[in-house]
Amino acid sequence: VATVPLKLVTLVAEAILEPQLLADIVRLGASGYSVGHVHGQGSRGVRASEWEGKNVRIEVIVPPDVAEAILYHIAQRYFEHYAVIAYTTDVDVIRGDKYVT
Amino acid sequence: VATVPLKLVTLVAEAILEPQLLADIVRLGASGYSVGHVHGQGSRGVRASEWEGKNVRIEVIVPPDVAEAILYHIAQRYFEHYAVIAYTTDVDVIRGDKYVT
Amino acid sequence: VATVPLKLVTLVAEAILEPQLLADIVRLGASGYSVGHVHGQGSRGVRASEWEGKNVRIEVIVPPDVAEAILYHIAQRYFEHYAVIAYTTDVDVIRGDKYVT
Repeated sequence: VATVPLKLVTLVAEAILEPQLLADIVRLGASGYSVGHVHGQGSRGVRASEWEGKNVRIEVIVPPDVAEAILYHIAQRYFEHYAVIAYTTDVDVIRGDKYVT
Repeated sequence: VATVPLKLVTLVAEAILEPQLLADIVRLGASGYSVGHVHGQGSRGVRASEWEGKNVRIEVIVPPDVAEAILYHIAQRYFEHYAVIAYTTDVDVIRGDKYVT
Repeated sequence: VATVPLKLVTLVAEAILEPQLLADIVRLGASGYSVGHVHGQGSRGVRASEWEGKNVRIEVIVPPDVAEAILYHIAQRYFEHYAVIAYTTDVDVIRGDKYVT
């Protein structure tokens, strides 16, 4: 099966941020996304205060340049005030051309 | 800890396809699976029409040849008519011998 | 964007084990975790009896040595009596320094 190497970007954030994050990633070039619900605990970042509660886990498969753009935007826009986890994983995707907009 | 390099196959598809997909992947050699629920949006594939709704996210850990067989089957059987996302990730698994049937 | 290569550890286990597993991974050095719910089927391990039911899917991002400690503990503590799936994936994380305790 022909697969295309792409990036899986995973974001975990407070549920209230879901609409804004989805609008961001589509604007930055993602052709789709999946959203699941998780709960968790972690350090909040700049203030290191603890948070716990309902989060969304957003996954999007994109080319490397779009992944880079999403991570850059997340860091710039959200990290100062929100607890957002963002990371990429290498994936091999079938029908990979569908993920390039 | 001794780990075994295996493939994590992730499928995201319309919820109605869950029973059929699970039967397929077990028949093709998977010894187990996990199913979560997500919602999302994406391009439908051949027709590029948009869909949005409740999806299942199926994960299965298998040897590379079984991953290949699952991806091939998914492409042949579902891609023409269904919105299915399918990709593999490299994972290191403990008790990896349990995933070889 | 500056990213840090870290390990994503994923555990899938019977839901009843959630509190104990979370306490374990925090004690072993994880600074946070995400928990989602899945259902699934798999071989039980030592007895190869089949189980099916509600599971938790725990994800934690940690440095390699903490990942190793978590996997070792899981193998020693749970594998004889419980159906626990445990694997690691390489991820590139932004704000990666937050995951080192």
